[in-house]
Amino acid sequence: MRVGEKTYRTIWEKDDVVQIIDQRHLPHKFVIETLSTLNEVAVAIKEMHVRGAPLIGVTAAYGLYLAAVEAKGKADFDNYMQKASETLIATRPTAINLKWAVERVLNSVSEELNVDLKIKTALETARTIAGEDVNMCLNIGEYGCKLIEEISKNKNRETVNILTHCNAGWLAAVDYGTATAPIYLAHSKGIKLHVWVDMTGPRNQGARLTAWELGNEGVPHTVIADNTGGHLMQHGLVDMVIVGSDRTAINGDVANKIGTYLKALAAKDNNIPFYVALPSSTIDWDITDGIKEIPVEMRPPDEVRYTEGLCEGEIKRVLVPPQDSPAVNFAFDVTPARLVTALITERGICKADKTSILELFPGLGK
Amino acid sequence: MRVGEKTYRTIWEKDDVVQIIDQRHLPHKFVIETLSTLNEVAVAIKEMHVRGAPLIGVTAAYGLYLAAVEAKGKADFDNYMQKASETLIATRPTAINLKWAVERVLNSVSEELNVDLKIKTALETARTIAGEDVNMCLNIGEYGCKLIEEISKNKNRETVNILTHCNAGWLAAVDYGTATAPIYLAHSKGIKLHVWVDMTGPRNQGARLTAWELGNEGVPHTVIADNTGGHLMQHGLVDMVIVGSDRTAINGDVANKIGTYLKALAAKDNNIPFYVALPSSTIDWDITDGIKEIPVEMRPPDEVRYTEGLCEGEIKRVLVPPQDSPAVNFAFDVTPARLVTALITERGICKADKTSILELFPGLGK
Repeated sequence: MRVGEKTYRTIWEKDDVVQIIDQRHLPHKFVIETLSTLNEVAVAIKEMHVRGAPLIGVTAAYGLYLAAVEAKGKADFDNYMQKASETLIATRPTAINLKWAVERVLNSVSEELNVDLKIKTALETARTIAGEDVNMCLNIGEYGCKLIEEISKNKNRETVNILTHCNAGWLAAVDYGTATAPIYLAHSKGIKLHVWVDMTGPRNQGARLTAWELGNEGVPHTVIADNTGGHLMQHGLVDMVIVGSDRTAINGDVANKIGTYLKALAAKDNNIPFYVALPSSTIDWDITDGIKEIPVEMRPPDEVRYTEGLCEGEIKRVLVPPQDSPAVNFAFDVTPARLVTALITERGICKADKTSILELFPGLGK
Repeated sequence: MRVGEKTYRTIWEKDDVVQIIDQRHLPHKFVIETLSTLNEVAVAIKEMHVRGAPLIGVTAAYGLYLAAVEAKGKADFDNYMQKASETLIATRPTAINLKWAVERVLNSVSEELNVDLKIKTALETARTIAGEDVNMCLNIGEYGCKLIEEISKNKNRETVNILTHCNAGWLAAVDYGTATAPIYLAHSKGIKLHVWVDMTGPRNQGARLTAWELGNEGVPHTVIADNTGGHLMQHGLVDMVIVGSDRTAINGDVANKIGTYLKALAAKDNNIPFYVALPSSTIDWDITDGIKEIPVEMRPPDEVRYTEGLCEGEIKRVLVPPQDSPAVNFAFDVTPARLVTALITERGICKADKTSILELFPGLGK
């Protein structure tokens, strides 16, 4: 997608290494980082140089390719790869894509006997995962765009107001994004729309990443405090909500950025459709009760206590509460399926329940 | 209440003028400001040196006393007072206390014939309003404390977890606070409790003011991002919610800091009692439908775009979203009465409906 005059993906190969946009510096600085080792990839995921369920899956897949290169000279190639997989999976606990992508690379490699072939296969699998992610987002975009189009028609082509939480944009995937793919497609078709962007504290990925993406693509948007969505919905200022998912249980419960549940409650209370856009790579086929079973990551309290932004031309962070007030930082919450109008997947739109999910993805659930 | 080793109220007289805690600098700096003129009072309210429905009422009352002093030499005393009232009422549109307090001073003054008596009466009325506010908060504390005590008993004296939004603490009143009065009283009685403090963006009055208050009083608390409350409630980590009110409609709808509605929805969804603590000065006896009729203040977008805090020993503000992303800043929302378990008033606890409110305050509604 567009960054000023150029177009980018969030991750790409350069010679034998991988490059990413280091998202910690957005929107105020555009920094490209080169990842050359397994360790660099693990740090980039853990410390959120990259984030978003689809993207951390793809990044981890490339990380395992880099691990394979590192393992080449070593006595026990398979053991090194196994440990590398565990390292990568341990970086972030909630998004299931990480495990899914790592295991997929590991399985593809295990079938090859020759070390050079293993390395080649690891790279190819990582490439495949990245390519599939782009296609999945494109398909999500097409299905979701129809929903926006329908609302637009019902409003006599007046502006469709869409609320989104956090960043499920192209910065969270390889390209197009999940929740944003329908928005970009509808915008490119000339459908009049406007996006309410939740700041999404504590790290403010909505204000920092989604607003930046939308600005670069020329999509009309307004940044709001996280507390605002309910009021807007109560007063007819939101036509639909679209969010992403970090892990989706087979019963339709959706883990996403903390605060998603509150917006889903408000949407329900005001009869506003609440959609979750997700590639099937975020579905956890083993989990039948998302609220009870999906692990919710706890991140450092200082992410709550300090807010980062631009100050006198430099990126600085300010302490908001008193120095000695403790804080806690749950990174995700789980929205129960009963609050979700529908899931928008790469294979189509379905209700957030097991039967409907398995109709789109037969044979995958337990 | 305590500030380090000393105790303070939020507003007090000194010689012929008024002093306040300039709350813009909290929690990182404790600054006392002297207000000597009507204009200084209007600026202090509008720019939130003082805030909180009860406190802005009291401050405006003192403001009108200062206006009376200014009017003394002028040809048309009554006209000056009328204009001063309008200036004060226009500073903030949502909290009804402002209008209530200003009109009360104005009425008291109008009964006096002599200018010196008018000035004296204005001061006395302002003092009365301040004194009443302290007593109302104390009474709210006693009634609310019983609710906390009951939960404590039901939990076998284990810690009672209370969630609050924004600052309805002593900094929002003259002393004790509204939502916090029950907490301070329960804490002083040795009831084990812990407070979840919503940051309360965009201005973060929860993190900046409530956490500071609770810290000074030694009340255990944890600061959380505004997005977190739903997750906590879903997982049994909240026993009750207590918030304040900026204006309460006669049907029980409650205007309070933006985001209150979202927490009320989450409390309802998880069967957690949701209480609103309010002195009757925040009841608008003319409004029968809070959602439709209570005016919601819109404040400058930069309060959303910039976050203020401590950076390298100085108070600075950082820009979070891209420079060219617009923002909007609704300061309040209205929680429908159906989500409110009960109102805690200075006369006792009642359901959030017209009949119950009028049973406590007979003869006041239309």
